[in-house]
Amino acid sequence: MADAPYRLILLRHGESEWNAKNLFTGWVDVNLTEKGEREAVRGGELLRENDLLPDVLHTSLQRRAIRTANLALDVADRAWITVHRSWRLNERHYGALQGKDKAATLAEFGEEQFMTWRRSYDTPPPVLEDGAEWSQSDDPRYAHLPSDLRPRTECLKDVVVRMLPYWYDSIVPDLSAGRTVLVAAHGNSLRALVKHLDNVSDQDIVGLNIPTGIPLLYELDADFAPITPGGRYLDPKAAEAAIEAVKNQGRK
Amino acid sequence: MADAPYRLILLRHGESEWNAKNLFTGWVDVNLTEKGEREAVRGGELLRENDLLPDVLHTSLQRRAIRTANLALDVADRAWITVHRSWRLNERHYGALQGKDKAATLAEFGEEQFMTWRRSYDTPPPVLEDGAEWSQSDDPRYAHLPSDLRPRTECLKDVVVRMLPYWYDSIVPDLSAGRTVLVAAHGNSLRALVKHLDNVSDQDIVGLNIPTGIPLLYELDADFAPITPGGRYLDPKAAEAAIEAVKNQGRK
Repeated sequence: MADAPYRLILLRHGESEWNAKNLFTGWVDVNLTEKGEREAVRGGELLRENDLLPDVLHTSLQRRAIRTANLALDVADRAWITVHRSWRLNERHYGALQGKDKAATLAEFGEEQFMTWRRSYDTPPPVLEDGAEWSQSDDPRYAHLPSDLRPRTECLKDVVVRMLPYWYDSIVPDLSAGRTVLVAAHGNSLRALVKHLDNVSDQDIVGLNIPTGIPLLYELDADFAPITPGGRYLDPKAAEAAIEAVKNQGRK
Repeated sequence: MADAPYRLILLRHGESEWNAKNLFTGWVDVNLTEKGEREAVRGGELLRENDLLPDVLHTSLQRRAIRTANLALDVADRAWITVHRSWRLNERHYGALQGKDKAATLAEFGEEQFMTWRRSYDTPPPVLEDGAEWSQSDDPRYAHLPSDLRPRTECLKDVVVRMLPYWYDSIVPDLSAGRTVLVAAHGNSLRALVKHLDNVSDQDIVGLNIPTGIPLLYELDADFAPITPGGRYLDPKAAEAAIEAVKNQGRK
């Protein structure tokens, strides 16, 4: 066991093709846009400038997170570090909403239902049946997952439940060994982790957003609790601006 | 244990900045050129076109091999597979020749000494002292290697000796489990592996070259011996042309 504080860096992937097209993505394996690639490179520059050099990387199985990590680590000259990947760090599965246009969904189902699916802590969207257009039931990367473990829709609470075993079993041991850990993942898998770390209530997590591409540093004490609640963004001004932009988006 | 044949794919990194500049590289961590990136992408296309999709990746700790693998796997939609990295797959350590211009070295030391260093099986170049300009003694990626294990110069025989434990302990178990294994590495660490697989003599290995960026498939029997000696390049014509070009280079 190394001494606390332990160093954990969270990195949400840069803009994806479907962020840009305003479609529900979830487990659909879309790529980064050029803007997303630039965000990833900037994330790596921030790691390097702050001398926060990861010893080990944990990613989801989705290419937008994997490529973000690869681009950032290459800039920070840490492409060689140990890598672990897990479906437990994947984005929230958006169920039958995957592949649907957000504006069209809002128009079809109305504001209340739409916001419940997007933001409620414990109400998942309708199930996406295996074999449906945007289902991952035939995706080889999930072939080893028992069918009863594989999500077909998820609310944020479901993400917390499936993410936490990975936190305890795979990430905490790396921190305990004194390694600086980078977790490259998604808006909702990282919100699930932040909810756990900062003990955010089910109500308050709804309003918490994590900007893309800006590394978020948590220094953790011996009990793996944040020394500074909420952690610290390596570019605080850009993070504040990005969070503000999302809030205003919600008001339109 | 899965049944043979086992599937092993070797991929030598694409052209690097120092290949292009005609400098001895070895353990110096140079990047790919744009041509090298294109070679890596073509390598991934060949994997995809041949439906040879790796389940697990083994790389060196050097960015030119890591980036080649990342680019190739992204094209083949396999960026999500399990990754293992080891210094045992690194390029041969070129000792005091690292960073030197090949033509200048030839002029300084003469043809015989030059060819002995480049091609002899068991004569290493002079040692590169720790702390010297092109030494990796302060490189964090090797910080966990005991000093007496860390190469300061190597001949191909030394590479065989340090590579083989990784073959037996890390790659063979993946093959045994039925996984299609991709090894993304370097001219000399791959020659060392091919020497072992095909039981090439110390004399004959001197004349064997592996072209960059063209996946080389070995199907192995239950004893991990090649079913077709020498394996099969996924683009045989391009491989033949590249090997011929290297031979002619040697004649100039």
